[in-house]
Amino acid sequence: MSIFKPINENQAKGKVKKIFEDIKRSRKIKKIPNFWRSLAHNPKLLERTWNNLKQIMKKGALDPVTKELIYVAVSITNSCEYCIRSHTFAAKKKGATDEMIKEMIDVVGIANQNNKLVEAYQVEVDKIYK
Amino acid sequence: MSIFKPINENQAKGKVKKIFEDIKRSRKIKKIPNFWRSLAHNPKLLERTWNNLKQIMKKGALDPVTKELIYVAVSITNSCEYCIRSHTFAAKKKGATDEMIKEMIDVVGIANQNNKLVEAYQVEVDKIYK
Amino acid sequence: MSIFKPINENQAKGKVKKIFEDIKRSRKIKKIPNFWRSLAHNPKLLERTWNNLKQIMKKGALDPVTKELIYVAVSITNSCEYCIRSHTFAAKKKGATDEMIKEMIDVVGIANQNNKLVEAYQVEVDKIYK
Amino acid sequence: MSIFKPINENQAKGKVKKIFEDIKRSRKIKKIPNFWRSLAHNPKLLERTWNNLKQIMKKGALDPVTKELIYVAVSITNSCEYCIRSHTFAAKKKGATDEMIKEMIDVVGIANQNNKLVEAYQVEVDKIYK
Amino acid sequence: MSIFKPINENQAKGKVKKIFEDIKRSRKIKKIPNFWRSLAHNPKLLERTWNNLKQIMKKGALDPVTKELIYVAVSITNSCEYCIRSHTFAAKKKGATDEMIKEMIDVVGIANQNNKLVEAYQVEVDKIYK
Amino acid sequence: MSIFKPINENQAKGKVKKIFEDIKRSRKIKKIPNFWRSLAHNPKLLERTWNNLKQIMKKGALDPVTKELIYVAVSITNSCEYCIRSHTFAAKKKGATDEMIKEMIDVVGIANQNNKLVEAYQVEVDKIYK
Repeated sequence: MSIFKPINENQAKGKVKKIFEDIKRSRKIKKIPNFWRSLAHNPKLLERTWNNLKQIMKKGALDPVTKELIYVAVSITNSCEYCIRSHTFAAKKKGATDEMIKEMIDVVGIANQNNKLVEAYQVEVDKIYK
Repeated sequence: MSIFKPINENQAKGKVKKIFEDIKRSRKIKKIPNFWRSLAHNPKLLERTWNNLKQIMKKGALDPVTKELIYVAVSITNSCEYCIRSHTFAAKKKGATDEMIKEMIDVVGIANQNNKLVEAYQVEVDKIYK
Repeated sequence: MSIFKPINENQAKGKVKKIFEDIKRSRKIKKIPNFWRSLAHNPKLLERTWNNLKQIMKKGALDPVTKELIYVAVSITNSCEYCIRSHTFAAKKKGATDEMIKEMIDVVGIANQNNKLVEAYQVEVDKIYK
Repeated sequence: MSIFKPINENQAKGKVKKIFEDIKRSRKIKKIPNFWRSLAHNPKLLERTWNNLKQIMKKGALDPVTKELIYVAVSITNSCEYCIRSHTFAAKKKGATDEMIKEMIDVVGIANQNNKLVEAYQVEVDKIYK
Repeated sequence: MSIFKPINENQAKGKVKKIFEDIKRSRKIKKIPNFWRSLAHNPKLLERTWNNLKQIMKKGALDPVTKELIYVAVSITNSCEYCIRSHTFAAKKKGATDEMIKEMIDVVGIANQNNKLVEAYQVEVDKIYK
Repeated sequence: MSIFKPINENQAKGKVKKIFEDIKRSRKIKKIPNFWRSLAHNPKLLERTWNNLKQIMKKGALDPVTKELIYVAVSITNSCEYCIRSHTFAAKKKGATDEMIKEMIDVVGIANQNNKLVEAYQVEVDKIYK
């Protein structure tokens, strides 16, 4: 009666199999990470999430490294270990240096502190910001 | 018996007055925002927070626009309206375009979703990420 | 100097013992889960929490399965592994199918995303909703 | 230099216009809510979010009322006023009674409390739940 | 079709009326705050919440001021304006000084920052703390 | 390509070495905890965090035990295991009894529940609290 375990790659069929192949090709990896193997229990969720992520994380007005750093910043704020580790890995693979990651963490630290100071003092929004 | 109200600039003395002047000079603004006027109830907190923020948000391995976008991403995740509005303002002032802001929001949206999918499926961290 | 460890069932006395027996009888289980064994360090907390939970989770306008799914949805949003696992277990025991759990997760995913999009765009509440 | 304001319906063109029409038809409403008018600044986000939401919230193993209640439970946990109000409205429109909503809130209350008690006592997951 | 509005005191009957009277007597207030008037839609929730709160917030190993400060610290972390304002009010009424409140806020600020630095660096628990 | 691992004490030089010595002296401990060894990857962050924490957590209008309990209350609310364990340890070392810790947890539990009930019923702030 446990939570859904990751599906093995060799058990993948149909839509799931095609998406797994696209993930490996796009990411240049040989093994499907546990995240995608878990979502495969729900092929529509897998398809939706993969297509959305591919569309969102590609180069646009922001470069892929900046996008990965933003992703990690959110994941730290939400305390999601898997997400912090996998997207720090992705950020580095796409070119993020250790200095960039450390500076991102500095911003996350002070933003989390200041977000709460704003609540504590119940600061009203200045007109200029509206 | 209410929460601390923002302190008026013309009531500022000593350390608070000096920091207020530094804020106006560094930010090229004429009025001290409510956030700093609230923290002024606790001069050490004001000093600490201003000095840390100045040190953290300046250009380094990451440029100031990227840092502001990361700050906003955290503030959205924490639902802090003041912080979202004031740092979106700062990001734009430093050169962020509407397209950049929209793409940051896209990343925040999917990261928040995927953070929770990871929890829902209790996905274990792949060895390669450790 | 560590955090309170779960209390053994055979060490339970008085009020704690009676509640442990009620838990086993009501839940049709033979071993007291760690959650209740931990709360037993504070018998009033144990009593309050068990009585409240029994009252809240029983059949009413909503059936017990729906209530368990809502409980799990909150626990995913709060990233509480123990709570996700124990109440997914309870949901299944009460009749939730895998399809029901997957659909609940889908809703949790998009709700978490949309909650943050609302913050990012600072969407004002439409009059019709007030 | 403000946050993106909702786009007026009569300014909508192309993809946005088509989605706005689909929203009004599917929801049987005459005015587009502020949420969709805000996302319209980013037509791809609007399209993705609307299509995903339609797919997720429709009748499946869970009925639409249960799905709306789960959506509201997540939104309460995330403190998103817009989301709480708009999806409580949707839940009622689809048939949720006041009693159902009150019971959902009861579950959200105790789940949020117990989630934190689990953290406080650092309760380990029982083997039976794994 | 709106969210439950606070119930007027003069509409209160039976159990709700009795609890309202107990609230006024215990708190030495003349008007029932909106929180209790809202919970009155669900008399069992009102009774449970009031009885639990009375039991928990009274003098014990911790004095009532310390308990109110802890309550506010949690409420700041959860960004609950009503809770921050009403329990800061209660803390002051019970004797908390402005200095005590400012120091509590300082702790909340740095705790929120350090909580996230721990996630960012994925710090493992030292053996001595277990 | 992993996350930054804690730095060994004997590798510490310059500013980091001096801060490590100050930590050991002030805390009367012989080994630097993993938190500080991790922050040492960023000496300015280490210096800032240590100096701020020392300033904030010392005796003032609130005693050090109360401050540690507030720190733990925030950490429970944020689900940070490292922070819960290390600051419960610190609280006990400074004199917190088991009864004090249990009562703090009780407050954290009900505050987290009531924070969400306020959101669920969208309770408006009473005038008296403003």
